Parts: sequence; C-alpha cells; structure tokens
Amino acid sequence: MSSLRILFLGDVVGEPGRKAVIAQLPRFREEEGVDFIIVNGENAAGGRGITPRITIDLLRAGAAVVTTGDHVWDQPEIVDYFPTEPRLLRPLNYPEGTPGGGSVVLETAKGKVGVVQVQGRSFIQPPLENPFLAAEAEVERLRADGVNIIVCEIHAETTSEKIAMGRLLDGKASFVVGTHTHVQTADERIFPGGTGFLTDAGMCGPEDSVLGRSVESVVWRFRTGLPTRFPVAKGPVRLCGAIVDVDTETGKCISVRRVSHLVEAEAPEPAAATPQTL
Amino acid sequence: MSSLRILFLGDVVGEPGRKAVIAQLPRFREEEGVDFIIVNGENAAGGRGITPRITIDLLRAGAAVVTTGDHVWDQPEIVDYFPTEPRLLRPLNYPEGTPGGGSVVLETAKGKVGVVQVQGRSFIQPPLENPFLAAEAEVERLRADGVNIIVCEIHAETTSEKIAMGRLLDGKASFVVGTHTHVQTADERIFPGGTGFLTDAGMCGPEDSVLGRSVESVVWRFRTGLPTRFPVAKGPVRLCGAIVDVDTETGKCISVRRVSHLVEAEAPEPAAATPQTL
Amino acid sequence: MSSLRILFLGDVVGEPGRKAVIAQLPRFREEEGVDFIIVNGENAAGGRGITPRITIDLLRAGAAVVTTGDHVWDQPEIVDYFPTEPRLLRPLNYPEGTPGGGSVVLETAKGKVGVVQVQGRSFIQPPLENPFLAAEAEVERLRADGVNIIVCEIHAETTSEKIAMGRLLDGKASFVVGTHTHVQTADERIFPGGTGFLTDAGMCGPEDSVLGRSVESVVWRFRTGLPTRFPVAKGPVRLCGAIVDVDTETGKCISVRRVSHLVEAEAPEPAAATPQTL
Amino acid sequence: MSSLRILFLGDVVGEPGRKAVIAQLPRFREEEGVDFIIVNGENAAGGRGITPRITIDLLRAGAAVVTTGDHVWDQPEIVDYFPTEPRLLRPLNYPEGTPGGGSVVLETAKGKVGVVQVQGRSFIQPPLENPFLAAEAEVERLRADGVNIIVCEIHAETTSEKIAMGRLLDGKASFVVGTHTHVQTADERIFPGGTGFLTDAGMCGPEDSVLGRSVESVVWRFRTGLPTRFPVAKGPVRLCGAIVDVDTETGKCISVRRVSHLVEAEAPEPAAATPQTL
Ligand SMILES: [Fe+2]
Ligand SMILES: [Fe+2]
Ligand SMILES: [Fe+2]
Ligand SMILES: [Fe+2]
Ligand SMILES: [Fe+2]
Ligand SMILES: [Fe+2]
Ligand SMILES: [Fe+2]
Ligand SMILES: [Fe+2]
Repeated sequence: MSSLRILFLGDVVGEPGRKAVIAQLPRFREEEGVDFIIVNGENAAGGRGITPRITIDLLRAGAAVVTTGDHVWDQPEIVDYFPTEPRLLRPLNYPEGTPGGGSVVLETAKGKVGVVQVQGRSFIQPPLENPFLAAEAEVERLRADGVNIIVCEIHAETTSEKIAMGRLLDGKASFVVGTHTHVQTADERIFPGGTGFLTDAGMCGPEDSVLGRSVESVVWRFRTGLPTRFPVAKGPVRLCGAIVDVDTETGKCISVRRVSHLVEAEAPEPAAATPQTL
Repeated sequence: MSSLRILFLGDVVGEPGRKAVIAQLPRFREEEGVDFIIVNGENAAGGRGITPRITIDLLRAGAAVVTTGDHVWDQPEIVDYFPTEPRLLRPLNYPEGTPGGGSVVLETAKGKVGVVQVQGRSFIQPPLENPFLAAEAEVERLRADGVNIIVCEIHAETTSEKIAMGRLLDGKASFVVGTHTHVQTADERIFPGGTGFLTDAGMCGPEDSVLGRSVESVVWRFRTGLPTRFPVAKGPVRLCGAIVDVDTETGKCISVRRVSHLVEAEAPEPAAATPQTL
Repeated sequence: MSSLRILFLGDVVGEPGRKAVIAQLPRFREEEGVDFIIVNGENAAGGRGITPRITIDLLRAGAAVVTTGDHVWDQPEIVDYFPTEPRLLRPLNYPEGTPGGGSVVLETAKGKVGVVQVQGRSFIQPPLENPFLAAEAEVERLRADGVNIIVCEIHAETTSEKIAMGRLLDGKASFVVGTHTHVQTADERIFPGGTGFLTDAGMCGPEDSVLGRSVESVVWRFRTGLPTRFPVAKGPVRLCGAIVDVDTETGKCISVRRVSHLVEAEAPEPAAATPQTL
Repeated sequence: MSSLRILFLGDVVGEPGRKAVIAQLPRFREEEGVDFIIVNGENAAGGRGITPRITIDLLRAGAAVVTTGDHVWDQPEIVDYFPTEPRLLRPLNYPEGTPGGGSVVLETAKGKVGVVQVQGRSFIQPPLENPFLAAEAEVERLRADGVNIIVCEIHAETTSEKIAMGRLLDGKASFVVGTHTHVQTADERIFPGGTGFLTDAGMCGPEDSVLGRSVESVVWRFRTGLPTRFPVAKGPVRLCGAIVDVDTETGKCISVRRVSHLVEAEAPEPAAATPQTL
C-alpha cells in the first residue's frame, strides 16, 4: 500500500507565527517525511489577513496550499493577487464572481491532491452560501475527475458545523479539519467511512497569548467592554495542526496524529495599529 | 506537600451519558484516587437541562458538585429544587434574585473546596452580567474567607472568553475549565501564576454523534435549514474531562491531565420529543 | 393610466390577529377598492407559524397570497401542505429541494402580479442563501416572463438589509416591503426608479402587547433572563401594512400609503403552551 | 397646567447630518417652542462616533444633552473628554469605572429634567449589564431625588427590547425612545401609565442613503459579502425624532409627535477612510 503524508497547520498568527512556520517546514519534510503541506494563513499579516508577499514566503518555504477564512480580505492588496495564485484559497461558498477560488488540485509524485475550503455560518461573518451543499458538490466533482486524495477544511466557530461536515463527507474526503478557534481539539479520529477528522487544528502563534494576541489587551477588553488594540503577542510559538497518512489508492485515511510543537521565539513585529476583532 | 485530586467531567448528555458517568464515578475514586468530583449536568435530561432526580443520582454516585449552563432552565421543575440543593450550581452572573446560586464551598478531609460557575456572553443566550467581573469578585471573596482550593468553570462558546478567564484568575483559582462546546481541547496547561487550565472539558455522551445528538439529524439540519428533532445518540459513551492535582496549602495546581475514557453502551432512552437547539 | 391597488398586511399574530384580518379584508376591498391582497401569516397559529386551515381561511377571506418567514416551519403539518398551495410562500432563498416556493405569479383582471419573498441573513435564523442575488434573479426572471407588477417582501431583522433590497430592486419591482420586526416604520416612499418602499409593514396583532405577546411575560423575560411562556396578548388589534397603487402598464409605483387600523377585540384563543422566541 | 416641550433627534450621521441639525435647532426653538433638546450624536463624526469638537458644536447650537450608543468609543479622543462634560452620555449599563456617565439631571426654567441612556443586548456589541434593571433603578433614583421629567433612551437593535423598556418604565419616565436602527417607526403613543413612547426616532442623515451611508457601497456589500468603505452619503438631510410635551407637575406625557423634516444639502465632508460596520 502506497501512502501520502499530509501536514496541515492551523491559523498562522503574525510575524512570530509565520517565522516559526517558515523555519520549521523543512524539518517537517525531512524528519517527518511529509509529502504535502497545507497552511492556514488568514492571520499571518499582523494578525489580520495575508499579503501576496507572505503567501509567496509560505509557498517557498514548502507549503503546497495556503488557505484563509473570515479574515481573507483584511489586507486589500490580496484581492488582485488571487487570480495569479491558484494555490491560495478563500472559502468556496462565496457567491459566483468572487475573486479567487475555494478549491485546487495539485499533481504530486504520489498522485493528485485536492484541497477544498469552506466557511461555516454560525457566529461568523460574512454570511455565505450553504457550506454543506457546496463542499459536498465540490468533493464529488473532484472525485468524478479522478482525484482520490481530498482534504476539506471548514473554517467555523461551532463544533457542530465542523463535526457535521466531517460526517457528511465521511467516505468522500480523506481528511476534514476545522480551523478558526485557534485552540486545538483533542478529538482526532477516523470516521467509519475512512475519513480522518479533527474539529480544530489550533493555531501557529505565540503560546503566551489569547488566540495569538497579547493577554493583557484581551483580558482588559472583556473586563471593560471598551475597544483596544490587540497586539500580536511575543515569545515562543506553538505550531498546531495534524499529520495525516492517506492511502493513495483509495484516498482513505490511515492515521491522524495531532501536531503541537513549541518553537523558540523570533524577534517580534510591531504591534497592530488599530483595534480589531479576533 | 499535601494534594487534593479533582475530577471534572464535561456536559453529560442524556441517559447514555449519565448512566456511564454514574457507573464510572466509583472507579475514578478507587483507581485514580479522586478526592472531589464536579460534573456538568446541563444536558443530562434527554439532552435538555437537568431534573431534581438526575441531580440526586449524580450526587449519590459521588459527584460533590453538579454544574449547569445555558440549558439550566430547560426542565421547569429545577427552579423550585435549587433552593434545596446548594451543590447544584447555575451560572453566577445571573441578576440578583435568580433561583439558585453560582458558587459553593464544601468541606473535605483535605480542606475547603470552592466551586464557581459563570457563563460567557459571546454567541450564547441569555445575555448575562459581566462574567469576568463576577468571577473575579467571587474568587476573591472565597479567598478572603480562607478558601484555597477554587475551581472556576466558564460555560461559553468562544475560546477567547475561556482563555481570558483563565488568565484573569491566574494565581487566584486552582483550576479554570471551559464547557459548552462538547469537544475536548488539547491545550491543558498550568499558567505562570499556578492556575491549571483547559479550554473545554468536552462532553460525556455518545461517541458516534454530533455533540451527543444523532449524526443524521444534525447533518440533515445543516444541509436543509429545516427544523428537526435531535435525538440523543446511542452506542458507546466517551467520558471527557480532566484530573487536576492541587497543593492544599497554596491552592496552586500541580498537574492537569485530560480524561477521555470510552465506556460500553447502556440501553438508550427514547428520543427527545421536540426540535431543540443544541 | 390604469392602476392596480395592492394591500399588504404584516405578520398576523395569533387568533386575535387573524380574526381581525379576516373580518376586515372585505371592508378593505369595498371601501378602499383594493384589487390584490398579500398577508404575512408566519405568526398566525398561536404566534408560531401557520397551519393549512389558517392558510385556507386567509385565502377565502380575500388574500391572494400568504407569505411567511423565519417561523414558517413552526407547525410541522405545513410541510406537506406546501406542494398543494402555490399561493402560500416561504422565503425563496432556501436551498433547492426545500418544500414550497418563494415566488408566485397570479392572473388578475388587471394583469399578472408576481409576489416574491426572501429572508435576510443578519440576526435571523436559519442561515439561508444570499437574498440579494436570489431576489434580483427572480425579479428579472418574472420580468422576462412579462410580469410587470411585482411585490418583493424581505423578512429581515435589520433596516440595512431591507433598504438595500429596496434600492437593489429599484426600477425592477413595483413595491419592496419589509416584515419581521412587528413595528411599522414611517419611511414609506417611492425610490427614483419607481419602486415603492416601506422598511417594515408592522404586524396585525394585539395593540396592548410586545410584538403581539403579553407585556408582562416579555418584560419579565428581559428583567430576569429566565425562560417563560409568551402568550398572545388580548384586546383590540391593530392591522398594519400598506396600500400601494401601481401603474399596470409600467409596473411603477404611483403611491404608497401606510395602513394602521385599530379593530375591536374578538374572543382570544388559549395561551401558547411552551416557551418560545418571538 | 404647565408643560415642557422636548425635542429628541435620532442618530446624527456625518457632516451632512450635524450641519443640518445645527442649522435647524434654532428654528425648532423658535417655531416649535421647544424647551429642551436631546440629540443622539453617535454617528456624528464621519459616521463613526463623536469628537469633543462636535459635542461642543451640538451643545452650542442648543442641545441640552448629547447621547451616544454602540459607536461611542469610535473616536478615541472622546474617552478623556467624558469627565469634563456631564451633558454627553454613554449607555448607563457599562460596568462601574467606565469613563463618562449614562444619566444627567439639568435645571431648566420649568424644573429639573433627567436624561438616561441604556443600550440593549440583542444583536449589538459589546455585551453590557442588564439595561432593564439599570434603567429601572436609575429612574427610581431620579424620582426619589425629586426629578419629575425623565427621558429614557434605549439604543438597541430589537423592537422587543425597546417596547419592553417602554412598558417597564410606564408611569415612571415621561418619554421612552429608541435609537440605533436609523429608521423612524410609526408607533408613537402614550402608554396607560402616562409614558410617551416611540420605538425608534430615526436618524438625522442623508435621505438618499442606506442608514446614512452611500447606497452603492451597502448594496455592493450585501451582494458580494466583500468588505468596502461605507462613505457617508450626500444630498438633502432628513431630521428624524420626536416632539414631546410633558406635564411639569406630574411628569406625565401629554403628547408625542413624530418629527421628519427634510433639509436642503450642505457641502459634504470627505468619505470615511476605512471599512466599517454600520
Ligand atoms: Fe477565522
Ligand atoms: Fe484565525
Ligand atoms: Fe451549554
Ligand atoms: Fe452542553
Ligand atoms: Fe419573523
Ligand atoms: Fe413575525
Ligand atoms: Fe448604534
Ligand atoms: Fe447609529
């Protein structure tokens, strides 16, 4: 049985997050034998969105696909970059005509790999089209095109949407993984139909933080209700995600293992300049 | 150094969940040497709320304290039961005059143990008073009363509120733990001030489910947007929570260990009779 | 110039509301010379949804079309009734395959009249597909089919969605009207392209109430955060809506006049049996 | 019987709104015989918040009290200005220690007038303390201090909170009025206990707009889900609010009359520079 090893890394937060990711990707390839890397970059630019430059840096460092989420448009320059880079995804369930795409198929030495991203609709903005219908149709389209190995990321607030997506795609996708809460869940498993699953990958950001932002700023916000800046935190970065082995013949998941790897700190970037939601 | 061992179990879902909890509590006491047990029972009655009878069963089985959450009032008979049972908590941050209490102190052979529950305010109903100010004041009040060992549960949707609560109470509470998402997180740790933490304990409910409810019903709901019943699922139950050791002198956390224990199925109760939110 | 006079009545609440509507529709036809009547019936059954029986009663009393909203499925028996009655609408922007339809064209002595209903997506459940794209496409489809006179109802919480819908359809629909807040707005007008508009029609329900429910129950809920029943209120009923004159040649709106008519009370029905959101 | 005439004006939007308000206040005093003016200024600074300069301008033009809302902190310089100007209010139901106050009593030739502002909790940020308990306690405190004439503004999204507040304070406040939706409602009335009421005052902003913002930008946002700037619109401004007569002996409301007054355009200010929620 031939297998493909996928590394999925959750929301990269700010300069500390992306420096740590870029520094560690080669190690994951060499030491872990990873074949294919997916990185969620929606918070890579100072916590808010992603730039073309950062996308290029992540791809050069070894990411095959970079995904985003509700923060996708935070850096306006990304809009015009989308048509030039199909390996950068935004949620699939935007209306027709939206810049960029939510699905991509890449050729690898071990066969085609499809990556699909959708966004949930509970407690997350903006309201988008039904992600269950969109993901199901796209995964079936890819399979009809002969793509066996398919990863579907659901960027969502609620655990119910994420688990329901995993069950909906069970037997159709190789791996379904959630992002957006920035906290890794401990429920990795393989569903009966052969689809690997993890409710949330967690983030790649400063350990001493609230979701990657400075502890003091977030605590102060909740105590007072007053607006404030939420600077990206400093110090050691934890890389969170999963390593998944997939049978290249059947596309079924062989194993899901959580990744939670602490990396020493790099020099931080300046704090974000404006108040912002997480 | 003398230590106290606390078992915290997340949201118990329906008859399968409570049967498994009741069957397993003695084992936790004996094999794990647990001194003090806290169980969240907000979904113990067919997935919706808790009854006096179920509360009594959980206490008799060994729980020292039973907590609730946003589903606390789902079974109307619980309102009049609250004044008779101080070991049953509802969130502290309801307005003055609300039946029941959100905090209790119990004497144990190893000293007093305080348990406080608050509810978050992001994406959860009903709107309550500021949980950060409420929890901080209550924990300080307990400490002024000589209570060293304090557990604070935050029943909330968002990871940001839960982590911020842990950091706010760092050095003041022994353990801060979240509930409500029904999925255990993998981020157990001890904060710099000595407070143990886990973003979400997870649930005690059927493994083959979406948050304890039947997979088919939840997937169908998300695909169609149409109302449906969400029967409690069947089959083996996973008990999720944490075991925490606390230094009885200082109240500081010595260790946090996640609990995730699969229990063979018991005979299920009939499905809930009406559509309901999770 | 030939014109058609349309009466639109907002959310009918409970037995008091529907009795008043049924009693008054003949008067509107005779005294006001109304040609075409649209009634929102989403709260007609004890405040929650609508039954086949009530739909039939409203149609017999003179309504040409009965619309609904987020409460459409509250009475389960309505699901199977939908395929038999095209004059009963549910929001158009449900996914394909949903029972019922969101658009209907009826022949009248003065020409075809199209009625379209969509539901907003801010602060209203469930999440549906984009109502702006759906309404625009449907209105254009009707116009391509030779339908000149088109009413579009947007059932939504926010004023921004409702006004934006009116502006989007300006020059394409004859009248755009909002429902769901149960309070009539005072901003009736005709947009530059000839489309009449009213942000919210208001409700047809008991005057001495909060949105048709008993004052005491709703005030108590907000003061305490505790669940309660919200019985339909009693006493005189105010019928709220609008009378709109449309040029039958061009489909353009000639005038919009608000309707706010107090009707003496009828005998009330028993209170609703379970707690419920409004 | 001696009476006091109050003018309440809803959310002033941008330069067009404040220019029109400032120009018209003298006319309201002279032609309408208004004794006391309250203006909601939460969107006066380019649509986002209010500055000290604008507050001073509104007070100088004749406003006795300027209120705010969820946009109160949008202009950071307002924080330090609050302690110097008690006639500028922010919602009362912020936690203790928040800059500014939510209630003020002013002496007039016809007696003391109290103004209280609270913010709702449904679909509006940030989460605050219970506005019903806060308003009730504050109004009773003012009455115990001999203040007869009391206006309570509730800045809220939902009609249910606003009407429930009016009923809760019926017989205690002279006038309860809602703001925030920017659309005037047509339900002005006097409740049985003598309290005047209007669900929403509407805004003081450009007529050809969506809530004061350019039509194109808001429609585009809803069609695409993509972020954009929402520049304040141009053209004639409609001043919306209410004129209320109060019996100075009893504090009871004698009459409530809606104000909706179109004012010719002034030169607009430059468009707001960043995307923003309404
Ligand atoms: Fe996100
Ligand atoms: Fe993120
Ligand atoms: Fe809960
Ligand atoms: Fe729960
Ligand atoms: Fe509705
Ligand atoms: Fe309604
Ligand atoms: Fe506002
Ligand atoms: Fe406003």
